[in-house]
Amino acid sequence: MFSEKLQKAWRRNNSMLCVGLDPDIEKVPHCIRHEKNPVFEFNRRIIDATHDIVCAYKPQIAYYAAYGLELELKLTIDYVKKNYPDILVILDAKRSDIDSTAAMYAKEAFDRYGADAVTVNPYMGTDSIKPFIDRSDKGTIVLCRTSNRSATDFQETNCDGEKLYRRVAAFARAHWNYNKNLAFVVGATYPDELRDIRALCPDIPFLVPGVGAQGGDIARTVTSGSTEDGFGLIISSSRGIIYAGKDENFDQAARTAAQKTNDEINKSRNI
Amino acid sequence: MFSEKLQKAWRRNNSMLCVGLDPDIEKVPHCIRHEKNPVFEFNRRIIDATHDIVCAYKPQIAYYAAYGLELELKLTIDYVKKNYPDILVILDAKRSDIDSTAAMYAKEAFDRYGADAVTVNPYMGTDSIKPFIDRSDKGTIVLCRTSNRSATDFQETNCDGEKLYRRVAAFARAHWNYNKNLAFVVGATYPDELRDIRALCPDIPFLVPGVGAQGGDIARTVTSGSTEDGFGLIISSSRGIIYAGKDENFDQAARTAAQKTNDEINKSRNI
Repeated sequence: MFSEKLQKAWRRNNSMLCVGLDPDIEKVPHCIRHEKNPVFEFNRRIIDATHDIVCAYKPQIAYYAAYGLELELKLTIDYVKKNYPDILVILDAKRSDIDSTAAMYAKEAFDRYGADAVTVNPYMGTDSIKPFIDRSDKGTIVLCRTSNRSATDFQETNCDGEKLYRRVAAFARAHWNYNKNLAFVVGATYPDELRDIRALCPDIPFLVPGVGAQGGDIARTVTSGSTEDGFGLIISSSRGIIYAGKDENFDQAARTAAQKTNDEINKSRNI
Repeated sequence: MFSEKLQKAWRRNNSMLCVGLDPDIEKVPHCIRHEKNPVFEFNRRIIDATHDIVCAYKPQIAYYAAYGLELELKLTIDYVKKNYPDILVILDAKRSDIDSTAAMYAKEAFDRYGADAVTVNPYMGTDSIKPFIDRSDKGTIVLCRTSNRSATDFQETNCDGEKLYRRVAAFARAHWNYNKNLAFVVGATYPDELRDIRALCPDIPFLVPGVGAQGGDIARTVTSGSTEDGFGLIISSSRGIIYAGKDENFDQAARTAAQKTNDEINKSRNI
């Protein structure tokens, strides 16, 4: 079950850090480009070097789909599940469609790839989300307040007196958490909104992108978003960790960067 | 260029019909299941039987991704481009993400698969859409008012006096059409909203799903949504056409269903 697995993963490694596995093939170190599956090999070495200081890995499917690397994505997820079964794999895909098609996307994320959770977009409403939520053993992570600058275009729109992202959070919490497998995406770049959504939803885990390359502040993220028990967040960093090193010791450089990020997270926790 | 190609395709076949290629492998006729690439073979025969009475084909990527059928999707799109280069291929993917990731999704749709246009979700705002729009030779089709029942959950929200779908349409028309390659998804199941968005955006093509299995009325769709010149719509039907027949003559059954749908569309046009 998603929630239980997440609770255990946080505590096992005392970590709310999630490493985003978004390998741009042009940035993979030269030393492994001759491997048969270089992107998988890149991921594998980062996973082996960081598995004891993270709670989750988050492959972003677009980086694989752009280059036809479905096999390397599958190998990566299988590798985590086989070797580090306590660590979650979140497929970042931001899917959304009418119900029959959403069921196909749920099959893609959960059956084909075997992810523990998938990110989805709320714009189309309940019936587009239900095929994901109905997979009670898996997590459904709904975009609420995203980390990008233009998130304000629609998510800040005033809807009958409250902002759209808040409307989405309240609606999702009321209608989409019947299997207790709901989570939200809330960007680290907007700590005030993070605090606002946490007040509204004290019991829902947040996947928080936007620290590292996107500029989100870790201390403010943790103080604004963590739950009373000192957990509640899946704080994702990708480029700042996976490209920390450029030579053959890239995996150890990734570990050092991940350790530093996790130390910074833990320093700010209410524990 | 997307707009010019669409204008030509409408006129060439005197058709606003788009056939959705969403083959569920369990519904493909038994007679072709022994083929090497049965889903491609299914699509190929439907394409050969309908290419002169449609303006576009719209493969829904989830149906391929759920089963690892990327090759069959690629073969299908390549087949249309090679044999019927005047007909558009719209990749229905409803993508959305931060800019660097959206650029990867644009690469997936336009470079890997070579689609003429792709559907995208507006929830994340301008910077999530720009990597698609900046491909000036390709079309970007933004979800506005979708065809599903739960579309009302957020798209009907009152935003400072106007509904969210209307806000999205007005915003997109003002900010996202600088390359004249923008289109909207507006469901056939909501003809009043279709008329409303057409009044707001007289010059933007609409991709209209929801006729056929979803229950949208063709005559009301055409009178509510077509432009002054009698075109303006890409009316998509999938299940009602591709599963019209179940035996070895399924392609001719698809043609008959497509012809009937296109006749019904043309009967209602202001021409």
